[in-house]
Amino acid sequence: MTTYTEHFTLQTDKRREIINITPRVQAAVEKSGITDGIVMISPLHSNASVFINDDEPGLLQDIDEWLQKLAPHRDDYRHGAKHESNASVHLQGLILPGQTMVAVTGGKLELGAWRQIFYVEVDGGRPKRVVLKVVGV
Amino acid sequence: MTTYTEHFTLQTDKRREIINITPRVQAAVEKSGITDGIVMISPLHSNASVFINDDEPGLLQDIDEWLQKLAPHRDDYRHGAKHESNASVHLQGLILPGQTMVAVTGGKLELGAWRQIFYVEVDGGRPKRVVLKVVGV
Amino acid sequence: MTTYTEHFTLQTDKRREIINITPRVQAAVEKSGITDGIVMISPLHSNASVFINDDEPGLLQDIDEWLQKLAPHRDDYRHGAKHESNASVHLQGLILPGQTMVAVTGGKLELGAWRQIFYVEVDGGRPKRVVLKVVGV
Repeated sequence: MTTYTEHFTLQTDKRREIINITPRVQAAVEKSGITDGIVMISPLHSNASVFINDDEPGLLQDIDEWLQKLAPHRDDYRHGAKHESNASVHLQGLILPGQTMVAVTGGKLELGAWRQIFYVEVDGGRPKRVVLKVVGV
Repeated sequence: MTTYTEHFTLQTDKRREIINITPRVQAAVEKSGITDGIVMISPLHSNASVFINDDEPGLLQDIDEWLQKLAPHRDDYRHGAKHESNASVHLQGLILPGQTMVAVTGGKLELGAWRQIFYVEVDGGRPKRVVLKVVGV
Repeated sequence: MTTYTEHFTLQTDKRREIINITPRVQAAVEKSGITDGIVMISPLHSNASVFINDDEPGLLQDIDEWLQKLAPHRDDYRHGAKHESNASVHLQGLILPGQTMVAVTGGKLELGAWRQIFYVEVDGGRPKRVVLKVVGV
């Protein structure tokens, strides 16, 4: 078995942003030389996520608004009063996956016809690190 | 290390359905010859999921109704107006896991006493592909 | 490739509790001798979870209260009426991850600066088993 590791840093200008990172993940898998296995992508921060969804007009904005409705910014969280990030972004980070795995077959990401891999920033404006690990043959 | 890949297609008659796929996953693990490692099961569509839960009377219906309450069908999503699938099913797909991993030990799925693996269809009536990947020894 | 498996049992006194298990996971990774790969931690019960979040004052209590708001204890679930665990804890178990994966690099867990691994008990007072599996080199 081979393993391959890559780290990268993302910094969004906006507070909230959803970025398609599929080309970056596919490039890392190709660089790894691993043609069959699993790739894991995980932000090293609780107020960011990596998820898979369709890349369709309007959908990403619907997702963002829905997240803010499920775990709204509030002033009466225990955590929010004393620290820089409001608890709401940690709760939103819990609804979203903490890490995402994609099957790699024949050197390609198995995403299906419409799905793409997105980095989800819920508390931007500062650098965030992401780790990518491929295990396979 | 060995890897093993299988694809299968599921098509439900009903719009929404939850199907126990544990026997199918266990059979794939046996066919792989891998006795120790991890199996990943992932639908290749954003409006379906694979999750693990108890197979108990009433529970699966409770889950379905709760999903529809957390992310209801609505006419004012940006995405929903223009495409076939309403945004609600994508949001429900985000609450549910995008992929599920199960430990394999001694050739068996490590599920515990009551848990089973379920395919969750939230927008059925059309064929959906699922990829299964085993990595291990 | 090497794989390494460990099982442990947790029993909380309280009904709901969030426990930092990072030292236990790091010790298992060291014992495995695997320096590069992925570790998976998964409770073998539907009413418990393992997640990653920041270990910050107030936050864990915010998370617990928010879970109880998203999937409250109710008497009219189909499942809850007939069995020991109310459906609410299964729904909360669905919001939380069914299993958590962490990258292992240079023999260390890749968690970033503030994140820790937590066992989340939503229906305690009885023994719960957790499986930990490392795959890598």
